[in-house]
Amino acid sequence: MNPSIAATGGSIIRALHGKRRPTSINLGLGEPTLMPDVAHFERATAWVAEHGCRYSTNIGDAELRAAIAAHYGYPGLDHADNVCITTGSQEAVYVALRTLLDPACDEVLVVEPAFPVYAKIAQVEGIPCRRLALDPSGPGAFDPDRILEAVGPQTRMIVIGSPSNPTGRVIPKAATKKIADGLLERGGPPVYVMHDEIYRELIYTDDAGEFGKVYPYTVAVNSLSKSNALTGLRLGWIIAPLDVMPHLVKFHGWVTSCASTFAQRVALEIFAANQLGIARPWYAAQRDGALAVAREIGLDFIEPEGAFYLCVRVGASDTLAFAEQLLLDRDVVAIPAHIFSPILAGWLRTSFVCPLADLREGLERIAAEALEKGTLPDRA
Amino acid sequence: MNPSIAATGGSIIRALHGKRRPTSINLGLGEPTLMPDVAHFERATAWVAEHGCRYSTNIGDAELRAAIAAHYGYPGLDHADNVCITTGSQEAVYVALRTLLDPACDEVLVVEPAFPVYAKIAQVEGIPCRRLALDPSGPGAFDPDRILEAVGPQTRMIVIGSPSNPTGRVIPKAATKKIADGLLERGGPPVYVMHDEIYRELIYTDDAGEFGKVYPYTVAVNSLSKSNALTGLRLGWIIAPLDVMPHLVKFHGWVTSCASTFAQRVALEIFAANQLGIARPWYAAQRDGALAVAREIGLDFIEPEGAFYLCVRVGASDTLAFAEQLLLDRDVVAIPAHIFSPILAGWLRTSFVCPLADLREGLERIAAEALEKGTLPDRA
Repeated sequence: MNPSIAATGGSIIRALHGKRRPTSINLGLGEPTLMPDVAHFERATAWVAEHGCRYSTNIGDAELRAAIAAHYGYPGLDHADNVCITTGSQEAVYVALRTLLDPACDEVLVVEPAFPVYAKIAQVEGIPCRRLALDPSGPGAFDPDRILEAVGPQTRMIVIGSPSNPTGRVIPKAATKKIADGLLERGGPPVYVMHDEIYRELIYTDDAGEFGKVYPYTVAVNSLSKSNALTGLRLGWIIAPLDVMPHLVKFHGWVTSCASTFAQRVALEIFAANQLGIARPWYAAQRDGALAVAREIGLDFIEPEGAFYLCVRVGASDTLAFAEQLLLDRDVVAIPAHIFSPILAGWLRTSFVCPLADLREGLERIAAEALEKGTLPDRA
Repeated sequence: MNPSIAATGGSIIRALHGKRRPTSINLGLGEPTLMPDVAHFERATAWVAEHGCRYSTNIGDAELRAAIAAHYGYPGLDHADNVCITTGSQEAVYVALRTLLDPACDEVLVVEPAFPVYAKIAQVEGIPCRRLALDPSGPGAFDPDRILEAVGPQTRMIVIGSPSNPTGRVIPKAATKKIADGLLERGGPPVYVMHDEIYRELIYTDDAGEFGKVYPYTVAVNSLSKSNALTGLRLGWIIAPLDVMPHLVKFHGWVTSCASTFAQRVALEIFAANQLGIARPWYAAQRDGALAVAREIGLDFIEPEGAFYLCVRVGASDTLAFAEQLLLDRDVVAIPAHIFSPILAGWLRTSFVCPLADLREGLERIAAEALEKGTLPDRA
């Protein structure tokens, strides 16, 4: 048995979901509840009827890769050969971390609060990992100076999720540019920035930085999961500099061989129809409603500029125990946000993918639980 | 950059395919040319229209796992919780090797000739790998005594592909039983047998051993790729003992999160319709035709008892150079079989998934190339 796999804990998010009841108000969801456009599946099925469903190349369908490269248009990363199609962004993250870092001498820097999987993969794979916690509630959620200061001599990759899971915060353009310039001025071997852009199509601000636009050593990972309500399709990609692509593709081949041919046909339909941002107006309205509800109830929250999460403060010192008790006492699933960074101890991640009436009911129950448990004494 | 990824060579099979021309006779294919049953895709699409396409659990759909467990019925491995759904058998192999072996102290034993990916993954991941080459042309292709003798004190897994890629040889029941008994008598920590069963539904003998039937520490990997002409669906699975399942599932979650919900619906349709062995009669007829053609042309070959490959002897000392020259001179793609084991130096792997007329033309050109190059002097 591999001891580092045995020693690393599983997903608290999945474990909490496993305990929910049919009656539960589920604010723990990390995926859209919208329905995908089934016409894309129908056309992909018609394609299979004509062509079969044979292996893709390891790197993925050339037409799809060209469409993705063109859609983002990151300078120097805008050729089809800058794109490798993966089994969701999870495999994209796994392959990028494994291929671009040498555990014997390289270090990865994760800007947190962030999705726990980056640090977990580093732990399992023996990659030294430095975690930088930045206060997500203020203007310094992606403080470029603190990020640059945290880059050590062994740092070869910085992981930044923007929009952030769990906070929904978005890195501003100026911060992106300052980090890029700082890294370029440093000299020496390149420090890659892995920009997890999984919520890129769900942004509610005009000031959204994209590393691919300003930094040549960007590794952008993304998928159709959140933008097009297709978490179950497992279709993602890596955009990366040409010189590292052969290695990424080779390792990806050993891990999963190639992405699904069917899923790539669905993706081609979506890009051809230019439907990546199709759900943004719905989420923007949901966000406005969610903020209004949270204000009305009087919970402290972090104002999201992207994604579909709302972090609310409950003040509990043991955040996991609070979340478990909340499910037992009041039948509400919410994610203890300390798992994204200790800086979010006492916070819960809720999501506004559910009907707003459910969100209101859930947030009211959360506030009631905090009141009863006395975890927000300033409000008692 | 990860040095072991950079240092490990890519796929010679994929590289040769990359050089083929539109006119080429392709005997290099490792996938069916049959068309899949598109009705399954249509029903899966209708399901998506009703339910969306949301995340699966990490381990996979419970109904599908129950169907797979019941289909194989391996004693003690026949519960839904003995099955984890993966992104094709490639991910199944990757996850099993990574999870069940500790690179610091465990060794994997690969019985060859075998698909090169087992040894390559071991190399990339720093897992000590012992390779046992057994003569694939005689009765000892899976010699149980030699396999048991090769098990060292650090061996914690034996990898056996049966039916074999590239030879099509099938391990007999008695050999399977003898290996199982020998391993159980050994005592000490369990030695897992990873039985790659990817060609299990394409067997042309009654005497086919299945480790799952006789050995409790079996890890069986399989997929719908070869049985149902669905290489592009990327739907595979691991069947394994209950005590290791949580670790396999956890690591699988970090690598790809979960299998495709759509692909799992297609798989459910196939199991419900009991269509796993549907293509066997066609392949059996192809095999008979292929053997007749090879005999007529007078090439030495290894008689396949399963899969869809025919290894033929060309005698060249540099097998890769012969295959590359064959493509240049005579426009035929065939795979140099030394990549599956040095014991197959001088052999080519051809496949009989193409029309038999193409196979005849291809084998005639191979024989002509060998004659011209004088690599089979006994025939000159």
